[in-house]
Amino acid sequence: MSQVIAQRLQQIRAFMQAKNLDAFIIPRADEYLGEYVPACNERLLWVSGFTGSAGAAVILADKAAIFVDGRYTVQVRQQVDAQLYSFHHLIEEPYLFWTCQNLDENARIGIDSRTFSLSQYRNIKALIDHQHLELVESENPVDALWQDRPDAPSDTATLMPNDWAGQTSLEKREQIAEQIRQSDAQAALITAPDSIAWLLNIRGSDIAFLPVALSSSILFADGTMHWYVNPKKIPQGFAQHVGKGVTTYPEDTFEQGLNQLAQTCQKVLADPSSSNAWSQLRLTDNGVQLVALADPCVLPKAAKNESELKGTREAHRKDALAEVRFLAWLDKCAQQNNLPDEGQAADKLQYFRYLDKDCIDLSFATISAAAVNAAMCHYNHKNADTPAPLLMNSSYLVDSGGQYRFGTTDITRTVALGTPPQETKERFTQVLKGMIALTQARFPKGTTGTQLDVLARQYLWQHGLDFDHGTGHGVGHFLSVHEGPQRISKALNDIALEPGMITSNEPGFYKENEYGIRCENLLVVENADLPDADRPFYQFATLTYVPFDKRLMQLELLTDTERAWINDYHQQVRELVKPQIPEDETDVLDWLINATSAL
Amino acid sequence: MSQVIAQRLQQIRAFMQAKNLDAFIIPRADEYLGEYVPACNERLLWVSGFTGSAGAAVILADKAAIFVDGRYTVQVRQQVDAQLYSFHHLIEEPYLFWTCQNLDENARIGIDSRTFSLSQYRNIKALIDHQHLELVESENPVDALWQDRPDAPSDTATLMPNDWAGQTSLEKREQIAEQIRQSDAQAALITAPDSIAWLLNIRGSDIAFLPVALSSSILFADGTMHWYVNPKKIPQGFAQHVGKGVTTYPEDTFEQGLNQLAQTCQKVLADPSSSNAWSQLRLTDNGVQLVALADPCVLPKAAKNESELKGTREAHRKDALAEVRFLAWLDKCAQQNNLPDEGQAADKLQYFRYLDKDCIDLSFATISAAAVNAAMCHYNHKNADTPAPLLMNSSYLVDSGGQYRFGTTDITRTVALGTPPQETKERFTQVLKGMIALTQARFPKGTTGTQLDVLARQYLWQHGLDFDHGTGHGVGHFLSVHEGPQRISKALNDIALEPGMITSNEPGFYKENEYGIRCENLLVVENADLPDADRPFYQFATLTYVPFDKRLMQLELLTDTERAWINDYHQQVRELVKPQIPEDETDVLDWLINATSAL
Repeated sequence: MSQVIAQRLQQIRAFMQAKNLDAFIIPRADEYLGEYVPACNERLLWVSGFTGSAGAAVILADKAAIFVDGRYTVQVRQQVDAQLYSFHHLIEEPYLFWTCQNLDENARIGIDSRTFSLSQYRNIKALIDHQHLELVESENPVDALWQDRPDAPSDTATLMPNDWAGQTSLEKREQIAEQIRQSDAQAALITAPDSIAWLLNIRGSDIAFLPVALSSSILFADGTMHWYVNPKKIPQGFAQHVGKGVTTYPEDTFEQGLNQLAQTCQKVLADPSSSNAWSQLRLTDNGVQLVALADPCVLPKAAKNESELKGTREAHRKDALAEVRFLAWLDKCAQQNNLPDEGQAADKLQYFRYLDKDCIDLSFATISAAAVNAAMCHYNHKNADTPAPLLMNSSYLVDSGGQYRFGTTDITRTVALGTPPQETKERFTQVLKGMIALTQARFPKGTTGTQLDVLARQYLWQHGLDFDHGTGHGVGHFLSVHEGPQRISKALNDIALEPGMITSNEPGFYKENEYGIRCENLLVVENADLPDADRPFYQFATLTYVPFDKRLMQLELLTDTERAWINDYHQQVRELVKPQIPEDETDVLDWLINATSAL
Repeated sequence: MSQVIAQRLQQIRAFMQAKNLDAFIIPRADEYLGEYVPACNERLLWVSGFTGSAGAAVILADKAAIFVDGRYTVQVRQQVDAQLYSFHHLIEEPYLFWTCQNLDENARIGIDSRTFSLSQYRNIKALIDHQHLELVESENPVDALWQDRPDAPSDTATLMPNDWAGQTSLEKREQIAEQIRQSDAQAALITAPDSIAWLLNIRGSDIAFLPVALSSSILFADGTMHWYVNPKKIPQGFAQHVGKGVTTYPEDTFEQGLNQLAQTCQKVLADPSSSNAWSQLRLTDNGVQLVALADPCVLPKAAKNESELKGTREAHRKDALAEVRFLAWLDKCAQQNNLPDEGQAADKLQYFRYLDKDCIDLSFATISAAAVNAAMCHYNHKNADTPAPLLMNSSYLVDSGGQYRFGTTDITRTVALGTPPQETKERFTQVLKGMIALTQARFPKGTTGTQLDVLARQYLWQHGLDFDHGTGHGVGHFLSVHEGPQRISKALNDIALEPGMITSNEPGFYKENEYGIRCENLLVVENADLPDADRPFYQFATLTYVPFDKRLMQLELLTDTERAWINDYHQQVRELVKPQIPEDETDVLDWLINATSAL
């Protein structure tokens, strides 16, 4: 592999020389700027061999460097040849600083502006200008040089029934068009794949975990839409499904589309964080004034309607059966002293999910982490040399989710194998108390996740402990399992929680080289009907119904209210899951009855 | 009075005509931009008759308007002649919009740029430019026309002993100079009166409630300082007290000082929110580049050192005696069915505070609010027609504080008179629970008040109730009772709480036309010594020790932990106050014993 990479670097350097470039920056992102990229756009992998989900390479004439975050510092050394690349921390040593330090004044730095958002592009440009260097938009050398490049995905998208979406595409487009008019623009760039999927009530299968059809679009202030997409992806019945006003164009004509747009519109709304720099620069090149606002689909998409919630609840009902079957199986393995390894456990859970034909994908790569490995909160056993075996008298953490055709799930359970140490139980209970406190919160309209975050952390904080990730992220409707704009976290965030918004509630605790704990349910914001209320108040309803492991609870740390919550929750789990268990699965039923019996 | 004001308006209009101005804006603020202004700078009062603490007047050739916030909508109608001024809401109908709407294109709007911060000035200018109007810096017509204007205060300032300050002026100036150097500036404008007082270890008596000497200053990057101040204010022994490097100049030479500064310094640090526009515009006029940063004194001033905390604790010890005497007296009045009115009660509390010679002022105008009036959270009985009588079978709220020579206090207690309604008790208990929860918080380094705010609101929120003010503000060391930069509130604030910072903890509940409740203690942030902590953690220590009224507590709403906190707190109150009660005040002692007995 090293030799192949060395050859590719040589080719890129020749390309750079021909274009008079002193550096080229290749990030992991592709032109859609999402969390996942299709195989054909794994450009960072092609130039380096690195398979991680975030990072960037900088190639100079005489050296090259690769930048990854804390999750990948070990992995990058295993996958990338130290003779070819130096290794750096993406956050602690930003690649732009390294680039500037290693170049002389007036050097020319090449980028493919499709692989950066406009915000990123402007930050890069400001820094590079300040250093008296030159930023050059260029063809992507990887695209020019990649010989055996996989085809771009072209599977036909599917139509999401309007009943499930709760709103027709036409209604949605008219709603967003109203926002475009209010922002004084004549059109909007809509390029986030999940926004397009939401707007057209379609889903795709171009990439793992995120059921979208990669494409681009322009929505006009009258609600009409130009969809730039590989024609193979257009499903039968599409025109009737979306209603009047949607015209499709081959995706490779998007540049012409932008040029035409510039001829007819003076002001175009675009989200500088979610649309790539290239598309916006083509507009400004042609005299268009950009109206920099958040993608107008983001807020309506985040606040689910009754139909979307109905599907989401159904997805969680089905997911609960898969989780219960899995947890029952795992306990049996433990009883038989025949524990699986992390990979076998993840596969078994996937098997149980896929028993349901409505589950068509996982919503992310399962985190199946035995004992010590769970202390790494983004652990992936597939990045380890070999998956670790699950161990008796320790805990096991499994964070997973499914993409059902009408909803997305995301759940973490931490369970006991044998008798875990007392400290694990104490920490588990403190984490669980935080999860319950956040679940039970009520809050006035206008409250943000930043304000509520402490509720999930307070019991850990009493002991000087904390967890270094957010408490909650939004979740889509058979769309992205990490959906904005709301968040529950320490970071200041000014997005108020609104009814219909789904959020995870996932406090944790991680002790390096010892154990990791996380308790995660999905919640949905709903109106609170309170007789004394003097203003609109909201509360959370729980979506996830799977037992929490009573064997990890230190009962004396729980208040009466918390015990009552757990007992009530477990009763609801039992009522939801019991009718789904086939008669012959008596083991699963017995496990459920036991796991949900009152404390 | 109306006729006098009419005459003054006429004079101002003549002034405007002479200067070719179509409008003049006169805010309540003076050149020091503080919460309080001396009599000589009550310009808004002079042009309108309005005595409130916030507002602005806009005078046009043919009409005039006055803008006040919700606290003053009644008062303004009583004090200002509707024939001369129209009345508007300061927030809901910003005066600039009104001004622009009432002027033709190219009209000239005059302001005295000393009465606006640079941030305010820039916002005004941007809006006025956008409307194709002209903003004109002008002499203040009030200053030009006010005949019998009171003298500016010129009392001699006092030296704060270095032992009390815990740091010499020289040490402080060297510390701030280091910050100036780090910001790449050669000097800083320091004009906030409390920053100057802190930096020089002096206190003054120019205005009510805030013990400062109004003045201006320039601090240089080598730690030397030019202090522009009325020479009468300079106390004996000043030079020795402040140590080397402080030169004093008459305050009226500040403009020359700025001109000279511009000749020697290219970059000057100035806080665009706390220094007035005039001083910064004079620098930019002369080619100086402003480094816009927060006043560098603000953070070190906010984090009190051990000596400042010692004095603050002593102030609270003394203040507790005054409050206990007052509350004992009030209960006696109730028993004798001889209740005072709000004014008499406030005066009595002031009397008890002033029994201690170290208490030299109140820290703000006492809020003494009977029953219904307490529902207005910023009520001032002096703004009412007549102070209301305290009423049996209701509650009474008193929010007050003292300026002691070594510390500032601020406390609110809500007490029962007779038997208040059950609902009052329920709400009082919910408010108190929130106050206790915030008091008991522990949190990692880096946490802001925004993150903790919910702890004080959570029990009200469970019932759909809330209060519309912040939960906590900073408090100075024998300085401003409202001191930044930290806050505990819903508003996003990125200032982390640091050891030594004092904050109030004052949740409340207000039911219009019925009652108002607030429970307020001051807290100080301190290190938490937690055996399991994996990072620096902080907690609060309480500064205020005065009983909470047990008669207002609904005991069944309190958890065991909360009862234990109250009992422990009351025991500490007793231990602190009992030794201070003179032998002959047996009534006070009896009251204290009873008020602090265990629940």
